[in-house]
Amino acid sequence: MRNFSNADATAISELVRSDAVSPETVSEHFLECIESREPTIKAFASFDPNWVRTQAGQLTKAQAKGLLAGVPVGIKDNYDTADHPTRFYSWIYDDNCPTRDAHVVSLLRLAGAVVMGKTHTTEFAYMHTGPTRNPHDLDRTPGSSSAGSAAGMAAGFFPIALGTQTAGSLIKPASYCGLYAFKPSYGLVSLEGVKPLAPSFDTVGWYGRSVRDLDLMAQVLIPGFPEGTDERHLRSFGFCRTARWDQVDENVAMSLEAAVQALRSAGHQVTEVRLPEEFSTVFDDHLLINDCEGARSFSKELQMHPDKLSVEFLAMIERARSTTWEQESAAKRRLAKLAPVLEEIFKPFDAILGASCGIVAPLGLEATGPSDFIKFWMAFGLPQVNIPLLRNNGALPVGLQMIGGFRSDRALLIAAEQVAAVLRESN
Amino acid sequence: MRNFSNADATAISELVRSDAVSPETVSEHFLECIESREPTIKAFASFDPNWVRTQAGQLTKAQAKGLLAGVPVGIKDNYDTADHPTRFYSWIYDDNCPTRDAHVVSLLRLAGAVVMGKTHTTEFAYMHTGPTRNPHDLDRTPGSSSAGSAAGMAAGFFPIALGTQTAGSLIKPASYCGLYAFKPSYGLVSLEGVKPLAPSFDTVGWYGRSVRDLDLMAQVLIPGFPEGTDERHLRSFGFCRTARWDQVDENVAMSLEAAVQALRSAGHQVTEVRLPEEFSTVFDDHLLINDCEGARSFSKELQMHPDKLSVEFLAMIERARSTTWEQESAAKRRLAKLAPVLEEIFKPFDAILGASCGIVAPLGLEATGPSDFIKFWMAFGLPQVNIPLLRNNGALPVGLQMIGGFRSDRALLIAAEQVAAVLRESN
Repeated sequence: MRNFSNADATAISELVRSDAVSPETVSEHFLECIESREPTIKAFASFDPNWVRTQAGQLTKAQAKGLLAGVPVGIKDNYDTADHPTRFYSWIYDDNCPTRDAHVVSLLRLAGAVVMGKTHTTEFAYMHTGPTRNPHDLDRTPGSSSAGSAAGMAAGFFPIALGTQTAGSLIKPASYCGLYAFKPSYGLVSLEGVKPLAPSFDTVGWYGRSVRDLDLMAQVLIPGFPEGTDERHLRSFGFCRTARWDQVDENVAMSLEAAVQALRSAGHQVTEVRLPEEFSTVFDDHLLINDCEGARSFSKELQMHPDKLSVEFLAMIERARSTTWEQESAAKRRLAKLAPVLEEIFKPFDAILGASCGIVAPLGLEATGPSDFIKFWMAFGLPQVNIPLLRNNGALPVGLQMIGGFRSDRALLIAAEQVAAVLRESN
Repeated sequence: MRNFSNADATAISELVRSDAVSPETVSEHFLECIESREPTIKAFASFDPNWVRTQAGQLTKAQAKGLLAGVPVGIKDNYDTADHPTRFYSWIYDDNCPTRDAHVVSLLRLAGAVVMGKTHTTEFAYMHTGPTRNPHDLDRTPGSSSAGSAAGMAAGFFPIALGTQTAGSLIKPASYCGLYAFKPSYGLVSLEGVKPLAPSFDTVGWYGRSVRDLDLMAQVLIPGFPEGTDERHLRSFGFCRTARWDQVDENVAMSLEAAVQALRSAGHQVTEVRLPEEFSTVFDDHLLINDCEGARSFSKELQMHPDKLSVEFLAMIERARSTTWEQESAAKRRLAKLAPVLEEIFKPFDAILGASCGIVAPLGLEATGPSDFIKFWMAFGLPQVNIPLLRNNGALPVGLQMIGGFRSDRALLIAAEQVAAVLRESN
């Protein structure tokens, strides 16, 4: 049997499209990997190897020629699926079996992807963690909330996976698990069939084994996404610490600094960006809006099953209760006012670089650390990429975050590919 | 049997809560009304009188004490319902039976409402019309897309109903059918279980028999909605014609002018508001964004069932295809830039008044006329109310639109109640 441990989704789909390997062969490789490591990793909320085999064996001709022909995919358990229960890691939804796939799940299937199963999320993609472990160190969290998709990626269970992000739910696990991740611009990808948390921020995102995988997924999930270009020129990047750089661990800072030096050595410009003082409110404004919208989104669950909500979730609702209508309005106004200021700040740059997280994956499975460096940009709906920095001597993964300007998803992915190439070579 | 033809939802729920009437008695009144007129009105996409009776007979004690105790409600057929198919007036979804209620449908049931059935929408809440007729004149359209909910309201099938609005889908039918309607601020009410069309604009909204009904629904559907106040003082309103006033029919203009005079006679100030020239692009920017987002939202349906999409829907997708990424970005930038300008314009006023539609319901069921006066404000996510102007000598309904400033939903409903009171008395 072929080994696909180092093949990215782009390579796998090319092999399947050209009939060099069958979708079944691909699936068997990943199923073996799951069989051997899932008992310790606990990435899946729902998994049935025979159903995986059935899907792989029944791809239509069109699917076998699709952009994701035969590519195994992990689906975070806050996306509706017609062939798996959708539980949101909540007791309230133990028996929830939707009849329709979420929009993007349908698009993945139409492109030939094989759904490996549903991956663990934290409760309702918020803070209460599930059983998933970080493959790089089983005593550490994989990060939340797209925990199962991220851990499954790192453990080699599938080469692409869906996550979502409201604060740091996609990029943080990517940082902790050493993954390529892309969170497109707010509103660009349909959220139909994804349970809302804070609608002002909720966004579909995904993991891949390379930047070109992230791009391949974008082509499948963003109809009309501009085509890429082969043009590669030297770039001008900003590097932004934000007001919370004191959260950054010394070793993480050193890794990021080394990455910046590698980029400069390759001829790219990296310029320090200092944000005006008024941006220091962004972190708290994101939190406040997230609380208020989260409480509204789950008012039904609170009414019907208050006893089945976690302490973390109830704390969010409690904070929302002590927040006034005017406070929420003021927070939204501040963000709207800062957005054009930020757009001006982005203008000289192809992208802005920074830390994805201030720390590596912390010990323990109950808490996952802050998301400040991620949610800061989420507050403005900007596209984000995580580039995993290469590790030496078994060090834990560190993530370089790349942020694009308003709706510059295409340019961000092109720049990310260049950055990833430099960092691969610099190792 | 009691007659509830002139009772609003607020009155009905009070009667049920105080055990003065039973939920079954209420339902029977509305079922009789449906039995007699539904064959000509065709408001329902799905309706089962026995299931209505079952619901009314099985209300829990908590529901029978809820804010909507025993109140019949119509649900637009783009909301998921666990007890009715959800077809979006599309052949593609003929067999679509969701297992979960949309978030707001659950909230209505928890508050004691009795779901009368699913009401006709246009195809996917866009332009291709269904069979529903306007109760005021059967040869005329009820307006789209919340056609069945609006016609059912006007025909007396239920005292409250859910609609949605992306361009003019809630307020236009309210204007054509003579209804009180409320479209809250963008993002305020969960869209979970509502099929997305253009996510930048899609909003839940509803109809009631009075402004206090609109308020009652707001209390049920917007957790944490500020409480009302008994304080009633003289108001300062703007009156805004926008750049498309040439669409306004002479008789409609006269009705609106009479309403303004009545408000002035009652002591309220009404001041003409002229918008800066740069606002003339808003209409086309809304259209462009609606097209692009609509095409993305339905990329799955286009891939799987292009033959089952209407000519109107395919035309939207075609326009999106000939729109560039940069054009969409520019449209979104323009709206974001105008939003704070508009907020300044709102500052001196309790609300802005204008036409809901430039015409009364046109003849024919295939087209429903422009939505420009509605979508202009939708582009900024502002709360909107339709106040039906009183009709003499069988004239067709005309709607006065009231628009609130950023997140001023509470103030708008209070002002709307005052305006409605003046207009009732002035007749």
